[in-house]
Amino acid sequence: MKKNIELFAAASALLLTPSLVSAAPAGPKTDSVAALRDKALEGDEVAYGIVEGLTTEIGPRQGGTQAEARARIWAVAKLKALGFDNVRVEEYQMPTWVRGAETAETISPFPQRLAVAALGNSGSTGDAGIEAEIVYFPTIDELRAAPDGSLNGKIAFVSHNMKATQDGSSYGAFGPARFVGPNIAAKKGAAAIVIRSIGTDHHRNPHTGNTNFDPGVTPIPAGALSIPDAENLERMIARGKPVRIKLKLTPQNIGMQTSGNVLAEVKGSNPKLPIIVIACHLDSWDLGTGAIDDAAGCGIIGAAALHLKSMDKPKRTVRLLWAGAEEVGIWGGRDYGEKHAGEPHALAMESDFGAGKVWAADFRLPASAAGLRAQIVAALAPLGVVPRRELAGGGADVGAIIAAQKLGIIDLQQDGTKYFDLHHTPDDTLDKIDKAELRQNVAAWAATLALVANYEGELKPEPAQ
Amino acid sequence: MKKNIELFAAASALLLTPSLVSAAPAGPKTDSVAALRDKALEGDEVAYGIVEGLTTEIGPRQGGTQAEARARIWAVAKLKALGFDNVRVEEYQMPTWVRGAETAETISPFPQRLAVAALGNSGSTGDAGIEAEIVYFPTIDELRAAPDGSLNGKIAFVSHNMKATQDGSSYGAFGPARFVGPNIAAKKGAAAIVIRSIGTDHHRNPHTGNTNFDPGVTPIPAGALSIPDAENLERMIARGKPVRIKLKLTPQNIGMQTSGNVLAEVKGSNPKLPIIVIACHLDSWDLGTGAIDDAAGCGIIGAAALHLKSMDKPKRTVRLLWAGAEEVGIWGGRDYGEKHAGEPHALAMESDFGAGKVWAADFRLPASAAGLRAQIVAALAPLGVVPRRELAGGGADVGAIIAAQKLGIIDLQQDGTKYFDLHHTPDDTLDKIDKAELRQNVAAWAATLALVANYEGELKPEPAQ
Repeated sequence: MKKNIELFAAASALLLTPSLVSAAPAGPKTDSVAALRDKALEGDEVAYGIVEGLTTEIGPRQGGTQAEARARIWAVAKLKALGFDNVRVEEYQMPTWVRGAETAETISPFPQRLAVAALGNSGSTGDAGIEAEIVYFPTIDELRAAPDGSLNGKIAFVSHNMKATQDGSSYGAFGPARFVGPNIAAKKGAAAIVIRSIGTDHHRNPHTGNTNFDPGVTPIPAGALSIPDAENLERMIARGKPVRIKLKLTPQNIGMQTSGNVLAEVKGSNPKLPIIVIACHLDSWDLGTGAIDDAAGCGIIGAAALHLKSMDKPKRTVRLLWAGAEEVGIWGGRDYGEKHAGEPHALAMESDFGAGKVWAADFRLPASAAGLRAQIVAALAPLGVVPRRELAGGGADVGAIIAAQKLGIIDLQQDGTKYFDLHHTPDDTLDKIDKAELRQNVAAWAATLALVANYEGELKPEPAQ
Repeated sequence: MKKNIELFAAASALLLTPSLVSAAPAGPKTDSVAALRDKALEGDEVAYGIVEGLTTEIGPRQGGTQAEARARIWAVAKLKALGFDNVRVEEYQMPTWVRGAETAETISPFPQRLAVAALGNSGSTGDAGIEAEIVYFPTIDELRAAPDGSLNGKIAFVSHNMKATQDGSSYGAFGPARFVGPNIAAKKGAAAIVIRSIGTDHHRNPHTGNTNFDPGVTPIPAGALSIPDAENLERMIARGKPVRIKLKLTPQNIGMQTSGNVLAEVKGSNPKLPIIVIACHLDSWDLGTGAIDDAAGCGIIGAAALHLKSMDKPKRTVRLLWAGAEEVGIWGGRDYGEKHAGEPHALAMESDFGAGKVWAADFRLPASAAGLRAQIVAALAPLGVVPRRELAGGGADVGAIIAAQKLGIIDLQQDGTKYFDLHHTPDDTLDKIDKAELRQNVAAWAATLALVANYEGELKPEPAQ
């Protein structure tokens, strides 16, 4: 209800205070923005084509690997073919971890195989594997409370109770089992750790993802069990006898490798205006083909920018950042932030939450841009998108440039109810893309870009905001 | 509509021609059958407990393996604890094939890994694997039409267009890609074959299952790709360049192994009446934990027979056959048919199509049992079960005894719309069981058993039927 009330208030403001809009610098006509939006909504195979191409011709493309290098070549060719300006690669070096063999099985009292995947930065068990007793922690808090040394020689098993949420907030609430669980277990002496995958599905496909160890802490083998396997293990534990498992994970660090960002532009007519950067990430985790994470994002921003290009030349340059190596440490986003710190930017946006429809818009703009905000809200309303009072936060790949230049931000929030069914799993494949929802994303982005790229006023928020 | 009309007709027959019912030998009162049914429907943890126990304490239990032997020990203990009579194992020997390593990847033009599982009875590629060009067949008919020798040194890839059906009939329509595809490809000189998994889901979990080679045909390596992988491969092929894949499957035949059936009974009061045999299979494929295939069936028939046992002693003995080694060749069912060919049976039933609710009942009974049929139809109607004009066929494990003695059959048909999302995959796990639907199955079975086990008339159909 709160959201509906706000939408009503925003629409009312737009209708009742035309002075607010007319006071803002002139932008494109409302009609042409609506036409652009509706054209995108009715049919746009560019976004789907990008997802189809990346998943079919490249597939998994982990940061720092040869597959990611092939993805950059593919992306440059695609963006050039679509007619973008200044298509180019900016390379950087990054330390690279790669998956090895991975198996897990309960040895006693109930021998069964378990579906497991190593977490990024996991240590190795060696080829012989590790066999040890499980110490079970229903939540990360119980692991945190375990006495130092109490896990010596044991394998910690950390579970959680993550549920699907539309805004994805349960990832933050339950993700620490992966983000910091291995580091905590290592400090307490565990020989290894397995966690219940950070996800919301019930398939035998574990969810990988990075974990990080503090400096000086030796990485222990750290794996994610599929959710059915984690639940099975919990049922075994509930029977009261000690449960022993054998775990084999043989990932390796293969040293510094080349990764890179792919950049492209829709040039603006006024080079004095700070640019707008819109981002997705080109890399994916290695288990799936990275359809929803994040070929979809690249498809959405690519198609939307192409719609923008089809209008009269926008006033501001819009730069596409198809970032490298996001999953494994946001290497591309940080490289972009460093290399472009001196180049004036105004606003950042990112699409990296799948291909579900946009349901909300969050803003981080100066008070002077209230008219622009109202125009965007009005343009998005027919798509079923409501404004929220949440402050926009941007995305991982634009985090560094936002921090460096205190940029304005608009977040087009996607429905993430199903996102963590697929996130970082082998199941992240093309068939999961709903074409109609993908088009709705493109339409929302196209309308938003048409308005912000033609807005000549200040887009950076006041320091106090 | 046809079904509704038949239900109406059956109910009318029951109401309007009481002579038909009263002419039949006396059975339990309608009220007590309804009470039994409704008690089962309201709450019955026996069926779920059997599924939970088998999947947790045993897990995968392929015919002929040590895991299946553990399942027999588990089953005997469980059936004795539940209070059944004559709980025992009947062993037999069977040739046993076991899975080895399995990997597949496209080598060119688009290198990617593919999720693959060997089909039962697949040949081995050896540890080095096989690398060869794909020859694509959109359907099994196109493979059938390929000239002899045209596949020499190639890897056949057979796809299909299976869709979910409530009655599971699409398994018969599209299953031949697995059932006979490898044999056909071998005869035409193929080095190996991969098929699109016989299934209806979109997860990266291939569907295994047996394939068979004609005598004298050397088994070639035969694998199933997950459906997303098969679709990805089709997209690669559609781009028009030759596609090469590398396939490694190293299954082995480990010779004759011990398997066995587990039998248990609810003893009848009249030993002169031929018995009723009700079956499920205790073994499962090796990839999943065999929750829907077929721990659910064992749970359903076990719980229903226990409800029967809670009434006055039935007139006929009801025997539970928890069959061994169904998946890998119906070894248990055939052994039962041979060993019990001389023992008078009257009727057979089987539960082996998951845990979806019963939606239809099929019969194969003599005309003289029309009153019994009407009683069963009336007892099942409150569960949403409709009679069909289809003739009951029984199940795999009771096939041999039905053939040997021309038995009566009742099939309680389950809704299989989602069955082939899970069938023979790693995803066949406990979480897929809907407790309410499982209880509805138990209720339908309990009511049916109460009626047939107390029916003293002829149950074998006339030869002409």
